Amino acid sequence: MTTFIQNLEKYADLAVRVGVNIQKGQTLVVNAPISTADFVRKVAKSAYEAGAKNVHVEWNDDELTRTKFDLAPDEAFNEYPVWKAKGFEEMAEGGAAFLSIVASNPDLLKGVDPNRIAAAQKAAGQAMEKYRSYAQADKISWCVIAVPSKEWAAKVFPDLTEEEQTNKLWDAIFQATRSDLEDPVQAWREHNATLHSKVDYLNNKKYKTLHYKAPGTDLKVDLPEKHIWIGGGGQNEQGVPFVANMPTEEVFTTPQKDGVNGVVTSSKPLSYGGNLIENFTLTFENGRIIDVKAEAGEDTLKRLVETDEGSHYLGEVALVPHNSPISNTNIIFFNTLFDENASNHFAIGNAYAFCIEGGKTMSKEDLAKNGANSSITHVDFMVGSAEMDIDGITADGTVEPLFRNGSWAF
Amino acid sequence: MTTFIQNLEKYADLAVRVGVNIQKGQTLVVNAPISTADFVRKVAKSAYEAGAKNVHVEWNDDELTRTKFDLAPDEAFNEYPVWKAKGFEEMAEGGAAFLSIVASNPDLLKGVDPNRIAAAQKAAGQAMEKYRSYAQADKISWCVIAVPSKEWAAKVFPDLTEEEQTNKLWDAIFQATRSDLEDPVQAWREHNATLHSKVDYLNNKKYKTLHYKAPGTDLKVDLPEKHIWIGGGGQNEQGVPFVANMPTEEVFTTPQKDGVNGVVTSSKPLSYGGNLIENFTLTFENGRIIDVKAEAGEDTLKRLVETDEGSHYLGEVALVPHNSPISNTNIIFFNTLFDENASNHFAIGNAYAFCIEGGKTMSKEDLAKNGANSSITHVDFMVGSAEMDIDGITADGTVEPLFRNGSWAF
Ligand SMILES: [Zn+2]
Ligand SMILES: [Zn+2]
Ligand SMILES: [Zn+2]
Ligand SMILES: [Zn+2]
Repeated sequence: MTTFIQNLEKYADLAVRVGVNIQKGQTLVVNAPISTADFVRKVAKSAYEAGAKNVHVEWNDDELTRTKFDLAPDEAFNEYPVWKAKGFEEMAEGGAAFLSIVASNPDLLKGVDPNRIAAAQKAAGQAMEKYRSYAQADKISWCVIAVPSKEWAAKVFPDLTEEEQTNKLWDAIFQATRSDLEDPVQAWREHNATLHSKVDYLNNKKYKTLHYKAPGTDLKVDLPEKHIWIGGGGQNEQGVPFVANMPTEEVFTTPQKDGVNGVVTSSKPLSYGGNLIENFTLTFENGRIIDVKAEAGEDTLKRLVETDEGSHYLGEVALVPHNSPISNTNIIFFNTLFDENASNHFAIGNAYAFCIEGGKTMSKEDLAKNGANSSITHVDFMVGSAEMDIDGITADGTVEPLFRNGSWAF
Repeated sequence: MTTFIQNLEKYADLAVRVGVNIQKGQTLVVNAPISTADFVRKVAKSAYEAGAKNVHVEWNDDELTRTKFDLAPDEAFNEYPVWKAKGFEEMAEGGAAFLSIVASNPDLLKGVDPNRIAAAQKAAGQAMEKYRSYAQADKISWCVIAVPSKEWAAKVFPDLTEEEQTNKLWDAIFQATRSDLEDPVQAWREHNATLHSKVDYLNNKKYKTLHYKAPGTDLKVDLPEKHIWIGGGGQNEQGVPFVANMPTEEVFTTPQKDGVNGVVTSSKPLSYGGNLIENFTLTFENGRIIDVKAEAGEDTLKRLVETDEGSHYLGEVALVPHNSPISNTNIIFFNTLFDENASNHFAIGNAYAFCIEGGKTMSKEDLAKNGANSSITHVDFMVGSAEMDIDGITADGTVEPLFRNGSWAF
């Protein structure tokens, strides 16, 4: 067996045993593009071997999706098969686990009438609302993982041949997900335990402020009184652990909207709307971005900040050690699942309600009162590096080291 | 554009415009293996261009099916997703058309526990019963067509390379379905009109007996008083014509169970249960097979006849001109959709209820009273050749030529 096939099988096992953590007698529902069939078949085999009763695959095909957007009449985009949405609800209520395999083509919908896209998303969103609420509330075990598409691989490695592109993206995914290790399942157990210990530590400390220092960065970020740190795998309704995103390296919460002051400099390029923004600096005063500078793509960055009122503020503060498997690939994946797990980062825009105590059931007004920002956008940008130090400052003013030289200091 | 791609597109168009005969604003549901994706995408394009509102593809995968049979626990085979069956009912009730693309692997289930297969078929059969009744009653437009799988192509052309096998099977399918003609849609209009005129002629004549003569064959086949000839495309509930099987060359009805006398000799090998039966002769007395001889596979043939009481009698008599596109390929397809349309044939075993006036709603007893045979099996075998003559004998004893030298005589 080649190393590639071995890694592929370890990756499939990892998705099954750690991602959705399939239980004996459980049904596994897989959402996947038909282009990923070889991998899906390995997932199915692994799931049955782990005791799954049934593996139900819902296939999709990018080319058919595109053909429909190009050729179908307008009214086709206001409909979504309700019976299919009901099927997903039924399977969720029946205790199934859900694995989504994404192999996105970043340019799939280039040139498509945005009204059609919006209508399709709305129809799907409404039909799948109940199912989605199960996932968002962690009632069910679910997991999202990625597999190369040739279009995605071409975007990440534009200078290689088609075959090299795909192989190299596979290798990067194996590395980023620890599938290239001897025992990835064990490695993830340890990794998850580490993330949970960081989360517990930080939630215990309830720092008032984080102080970031690095070349070009001196930034103080206040945290809301009711902030909650989140990270690593969750647990479903039955108490079975699962990992909703693979890879995941971050531990994150929401900043106090009006409590960010100082300057922060990016450590990796930001791809936004098809443009690359490089070596940029943001200056904050009472949470608001008051100055924007970039060596490349400054206009794009300014337009991003001008999206709405909320896009002038931060909505996420995330801690990722510089020495992480993804960061070590040194690759821009043009895919949030990977890129946001490569480095300490912030997000411009909307905050997650679940990062505030009781936030999931709060009104917008109450979330705002508790310091959480609101915006139609949420864009992560990377600031971490081997030279970054971060201190935590407690309510009584004690300063404690959180990060030193880009890595956890506790 | 290569001839191959042209034929492929003509075949896709044919399935859409003649097979299901898609109407403006209609939804097309396609059942297809993921291995046929290239063809399915052409079908979708053709359907949208013909005015379809939506093309909904339900994908399946032979390898996943086999993996489930090999690895899933027993109880998995007693279940079928009811929500999916309901979805098919809903789409049928909503006026959708249904295209099934088969690319079978003849050996897919080799070695699988027959109890599992039976359980799975039963569960699917029960869940899909209502939907199937819509198709069987021609309430909806539906069509079955075939696309090569590499396993199927290998079975048909064992002596060629893998690439040649698939190409050659494609060519044979194009020829058999008239997709290689300049204007296949027009060719099918004419072909369908011919089949319908033969059906009308035969139903008008109400022959009492057919008399087959050819080298090694001298057989008299009585027809039940209430027999109905069937052939060519049907019409759905809205009166829209469609063709349920492509190719289709046969015009068929049921013989009078106890009214077959004489000898018939096969003109093509019969593949049954993995064995080939060659150059065989059946002798009938009052409908019952009383003697069986074969140059090869005689034991297999005897076992087939011994299956049950009904397998000692005929259940189908079908007329196909020797000079038909399928017959002219001179290929054994190991696939009923093709092989039964290659030549005049009979079937050992069960008769179709719809070949008797009012038969669809008759009890088993009434069907038997009307001369229709009943058996758990139904196996077609070929008897036609360029040397076959058939006469029709009317109730008053008039003898009229039906076939001369293997072709229609009227
Ligand atoms: Zn993040
Ligand atoms: Zn984020
Ligand atoms: Zn037939
Ligand atoms: Zn038949």
